Amino acid sequence: MPVGTQGAVKAARHRELEEAGAEIILANTYHLLLRPGDELVARRGGLHRFIGWERPILTDSGGFQVYSLAQRRVITEEGADFQSHLDGTRHLLTPEQAADIQTRLGSDLAMVLDECLALPATRDQAAVAMSRSVRWAERSRQRLLALQAGEVREVQATNPGQAQFGIVQGGLFQDLRDESAEAMVAIGFEGYAIGGLSVGEPIEQMYTLAADTARRLPQERPRYLMGVGAPEDLVECVARGIDMFDCVLPTRNARNGQLFTSEGRINIKNARYAEDDGPVDPQCGCYTCRHHSRAYLRHLYVAGEMTAGVLNTLHNLSFYLDTMRRIRDAIAFRTFTNFRQEFVRTVSTGTP
Amino acid sequence: MPVGTQGAVKAARHRELEEAGAEIILANTYHLLLRPGDELVARRGGLHRFIGWERPILTDSGGFQVYSLAQRRVITEEGADFQSHLDGTRHLLTPEQAADIQTRLGSDLAMVLDECLALPATRDQAAVAMSRSVRWAERSRQRLLALQAGEVREVQATNPGQAQFGIVQGGLFQDLRDESAEAMVAIGFEGYAIGGLSVGEPIEQMYTLAADTARRLPQERPRYLMGVGAPEDLVECVARGIDMFDCVLPTRNARNGQLFTSEGRINIKNARYAEDDGPVDPQCGCYTCRHHSRAYLRHLYVAGEMTAGVLNTLHNLSFYLDTMRRIRDAIAFRTFTNFRQEFVRTVSTGTP
Repeated sequence: MPVGTQGAVKAARHRELEEAGAEIILANTYHLLLRPGDELVARRGGLHRFIGWERPILTDSGGFQVYSLAQRRVITEEGADFQSHLDGTRHLLTPEQAADIQTRLGSDLAMVLDECLALPATRDQAAVAMSRSVRWAERSRQRLLALQAGEVREVQATNPGQAQFGIVQGGLFQDLRDESAEAMVAIGFEGYAIGGLSVGEPIEQMYTLAADTARRLPQERPRYLMGVGAPEDLVECVARGIDMFDCVLPTRNARNGQLFTSEGRINIKNARYAEDDGPVDPQCGCYTCRHHSRAYLRHLYVAGEMTAGVLNTLHNLSFYLDTMRRIRDAIAFRTFTNFRQEFVRTVSTGTP
Repeated sequence: MPVGTQGAVKAARHRELEEAGAEIILANTYHLLLRPGDELVARRGGLHRFIGWERPILTDSGGFQVYSLAQRRVITEEGADFQSHLDGTRHLLTPEQAADIQTRLGSDLAMVLDECLALPATRDQAAVAMSRSVRWAERSRQRLLALQAGEVREVQATNPGQAQFGIVQGGLFQDLRDESAEAMVAIGFEGYAIGGLSVGEPIEQMYTLAADTARRLPQERPRYLMGVGAPEDLVECVARGIDMFDCVLPTRNARNGQLFTSEGRINIKNARYAEDDGPVDPQCGCYTCRHHSRAYLRHLYVAGEMTAGVLNTLHNLSFYLDTMRRIRDAIAFRTFTNFRQEFVRTVSTGTP
């Protein structure tokens, strides 16, 4: 899922996203809550109509952004009390309110509010946060059911068929994650996410935790690894049972001049590309690769042209979405094992 | 002509320009000379191939940008000695070099080097600059003919069929402009430009000078009014004999949130648009107006999203290019007088 934090994937129009093959985008509840406000979005008919995007949208719960505010938030059993990064106003985000806000936004997939763990964390700290996340998930689910039953008059629902995902937490402790997964499945959600990974732990540990957690989640429901990752992580984690990902890496790195290719990553600002008439990636069929050379893209980047961000974003998203498409094809044609070996060998070679 | 200073119209991909109906873009010789350099562009096969744009390109001579450097340049009979705004290096831009550089860039339409007049200017100052511009135009033309005859071995031509425009100067003194126009026609160019207008003089004076100057230029050659203007200026100046324009207004104002519409200009950041579900301009068929509301565009602008610049640019360019298309249609159907009255009445009403 390309990340469209404020209701727009940075530097990409919706049409480019659709052409790159994006079937769903992610939007951030925290940002939209503060600006333009969930009630304004509801009055516009919901997020789809407000932003003009017809395909599915997943909204997070706001929990991770609130957690990222560090000094500006206090977590209690009731919820997260935080201060807006925009104007310093104080807000309380409870599991119920996170559900209400996402109901007003009218995303297709909503997430429960969870407590993100500050690292490094002891087992006790991880256990406390995990247990609270289970209680919050239960409250989130109850609220969604009440909303869908029409029992909450003051909240305007713009997408009645909204699905909700539980989030498995537990830090880097697999027994806690097992307990969390079991509790989430007991509550019962349309899908399950794995949160709190890819936060600085060694990559092999992340892979192992993702694999062991995915194994505890129902096969017939989508399993979503939050905030991951590099192209090779997508392939490796699909191999471990993951179905869905979101990450700012393709879009953020594009704006910083880092491009993903079938031969590894390149930094387009590098002087070696000043006279390189070839495309970013000879294997890629995106607009950028069909129309522009590395030399031109380097010029745009060095000259500070916004179009550099636009063209680079388009390429990186195409590369990511192509990767997921190739993974699906390989699974369908039972060639995934070969695909995985070849992909990791070529893509992980670093800057060519 | 949309302005693509550094080889890219800011915030627009080429495809959007083509869809908006851009038949030609302008690029700035001064900027491309300094970065990435005209020789690098020539090695790429010229500007068209370097930037991936197949339709015509007009390059200016660099004269106006050098003039704009104010304290950083010295004008002599030989040419303009200036200091780069990027790295402070000194460069000499002569009429011959301006022709050489544009030959390397391989634009379809090249401009002669002219001396731009610092304002306010006395008649004597205007006469001196005008006379020098005539001598520079003569040298520019001789150089182009030598280049096209293959007499300048060290300059790589990437577009042998390049046309060249003379530029009429003379400040705000019509008799000087008459003299300049006569001299330019005597030298003989594929087209003629009117420079040094729209630099702070009253709009009616600009219209009168443009009209009286256009009258002195051959009807069967394109007449190009440089650096103009607002939408109503396009209509008013076509009525006075002008065929071509360039201006940063549509693109620059788009990035600042000012949008041109069939009912006047609007500032999209205005709070009145926060809950406005209508398109920027109900008369417009551009991508932005077809897919997005004023409320969403305001949100993107206020939130600082790059996509605001992209979508606003697309709309403003579409509005300008639609205006030119409507002018051509009105002339063809002999309804231009009515069109002009109606256009100026509706578009000039200011912010609705």
